[in-house]
Amino acid sequence: MSEPARDPSLPPAGLALRHLRRDISEMQGYTPGEQVRDCIKLNTNESAWAPSPRTREVLRQVADDQLRLYPDPLFKQLRAAASSRYGVAPEQVLAGNGSDDCLTIIYRAFLTPGERVAAPWPTYGLYDTLATLQGVDIAHVDYRIEAKQWHLPRHLSKQGAKVVLVANPNNPSATLTPIEQLRQLAYEIDGILVVDEAYIDFAPEGSSMLPHLASHPNVIVLRTFSKSYSLAGARLGLLFAHPELVNHLMKVKDSYNVNALTQALGVAALEDHDHHRALVQDTLRERTRLEGELATFGWTWPASAANFLLCEVGDKAGAIYTALKDRGVLVRWWDRPLLSSKLRITVGRPDQTELLLKHLKDLV
Amino acid sequence: MSEPARDPSLPPAGLALRHLRRDISEMQGYTPGEQVRDCIKLNTNESAWAPSPRTREVLRQVADDQLRLYPDPLFKQLRAAASSRYGVAPEQVLAGNGSDDCLTIIYRAFLTPGERVAAPWPTYGLYDTLATLQGVDIAHVDYRIEAKQWHLPRHLSKQGAKVVLVANPNNPSATLTPIEQLRQLAYEIDGILVVDEAYIDFAPEGSSMLPHLASHPNVIVLRTFSKSYSLAGARLGLLFAHPELVNHLMKVKDSYNVNALTQALGVAALEDHDHHRALVQDTLRERTRLEGELATFGWTWPASAANFLLCEVGDKAGAIYTALKDRGVLVRWWDRPLLSSKLRITVGRPDQTELLLKHLKDLV
Repeated sequence: MSEPARDPSLPPAGLALRHLRRDISEMQGYTPGEQVRDCIKLNTNESAWAPSPRTREVLRQVADDQLRLYPDPLFKQLRAAASSRYGVAPEQVLAGNGSDDCLTIIYRAFLTPGERVAAPWPTYGLYDTLATLQGVDIAHVDYRIEAKQWHLPRHLSKQGAKVVLVANPNNPSATLTPIEQLRQLAYEIDGILVVDEAYIDFAPEGSSMLPHLASHPNVIVLRTFSKSYSLAGARLGLLFAHPELVNHLMKVKDSYNVNALTQALGVAALEDHDHHRALVQDTLRERTRLEGELATFGWTWPASAANFLLCEVGDKAGAIYTALKDRGVLVRWWDRPLLSSKLRITVGRPDQTELLLKHLKDLV
Repeated sequence: MSEPARDPSLPPAGLALRHLRRDISEMQGYTPGEQVRDCIKLNTNESAWAPSPRTREVLRQVADDQLRLYPDPLFKQLRAAASSRYGVAPEQVLAGNGSDDCLTIIYRAFLTPGERVAAPWPTYGLYDTLATLQGVDIAHVDYRIEAKQWHLPRHLSKQGAKVVLVANPNNPSATLTPIEQLRQLAYEIDGILVVDEAYIDFAPEGSSMLPHLASHPNVIVLRTFSKSYSLAGARLGLLFAHPELVNHLMKVKDSYNVNALTQALGVAALEDHDHHRALVQDTLRERTRLEGELATFGWTWPASAANFLLCEVGDKAGAIYTALKDRGVLVRWWDRPLLSSKLRITVGRPDQTELLLKHLKDLV
């Protein structure tokens, strides 16, 4: 392999850029989540604790052939493990390179440019990005906020949307929409309802749409391994839907979209119920403690069904976010309507909570 | 987590299916590459030898936080390693979840439904699949086959295509298009030329378009770790282009499209020059031996610049493919015009070659 000298003075791309789709050319540059080194990272809702020790075992036992050969394009073992864990048929399961990949597959399968999706607002920002990428319109319908609780907006079903997306629990509010309201929404719309359950394991039992899939062939449920399974680095999401729908969605995914290591890690994580349960319980215990401490600042937040809190902080939210960052503690703040007075704080480990509180006592 | 009983008698999906895009609904179901257990797998052009031992070291040293936290969305270490290995600026590099992901990013960035791509034919089937998914037309222009050699068709630049794709070396022919013809093509077209160099490490030095990127801002070069780096299971591809183009393409990719383990494996593989060189040399040596043996059957093939041969076998090609499969040796055969008399055989390890030859001696 020859190694040509690097040319530091490349000419401008010029005319080549005009071949880009206008949607892409004009869209906002990608802003990745902040990756500050050696900080306490409470800004992207990862789990505070390590994944199942069985995942380390998987990595120790990787065979050369798992690296050398293409992964199973139909992820049979992973589907079987998900089937057994969640009580659905294997044919109802599709795996993605993160649930972001599952969302991309949904947009590409259902939406022709010019069509529309809808979501209650504010919610997960990727729904917007994917709308731009697919050339479709997105209708934001504001959550009804009453007595600090966030309620599904009544007109969500009347936006002429082919795909309606509801994160449940919602991000960034951590609020839960009751299952009966989601079922009602699924009946009302003439389209597909995507229920994104990234944080559902932190919600009370009985909050998931999964057991109701059979009654709603137009519903798709998403899960991720980035939160309660502590595997954000491995990229794994699951999509649950009617088998006929899954068959079509399989045609849209990249052939080998989930690598061999991640498939094996997913199986190990699904099979270790005890570790998963402990991880969720540790998170809920620490969430309760964090709530008790933050209340002493006079802060409030909608009741959380997730591993984070959306705190109402007031005018100083932005300043506190910056000061915390300067002290090596990263939380999330958006300079946007409805959110600029709030901080979103991920539940950390007890030692991380202590440091957060120490700095907040100085700052607030 | 409650575990609802599995319902084996799901009602049909019915009306939900009509929300699918018609392109998707009508497209052919996905046919994954054959995954026969305990067979000699010479059908998908993976490397016959194990990846760099440094990749095992990477897996042994994975920290919990690499699994727990999101991966670097900008893959800085991987870009730096690729920059140093290939003599390009880090800003000219984008990494994908396999080069299939890079191809998807290209289609989504440049192509609006109704537009057109073009490729010489036959070539890698994914270019067709992606055209259907993006709702664009694909123009196939047959290779000119003269004296067993495959030449780039003269009219490829005149198809009104916004994106022209050339696999070089080509799959399934293993043939190489001279660099000057590709540069000429890049000048002639009013659009983007994608040169897919999945197999380039097996071609003679000086065959790559990479050193010429600076002169051609409308060219994108793709590489994969699935062949000469023996990492098909890890899913990693690289895209090289003008930095301004890469900036736009970054907006189209999934935020965290390459998981943390694969990023680390990629760095380790790029840094182990010696192993990579040895792997390529072993492959070329075994290719030469395989050619000598297959010639004794009277078979011919276009000169190979890759880790496989497209053998002209005649009427019995399909029957030989099936008989080999029955004996546990998997090669590739397509029941399609231009290909039905041919077998594509991946270069295997010497012991695999021996078994292939033993069975062929019985069958031919």
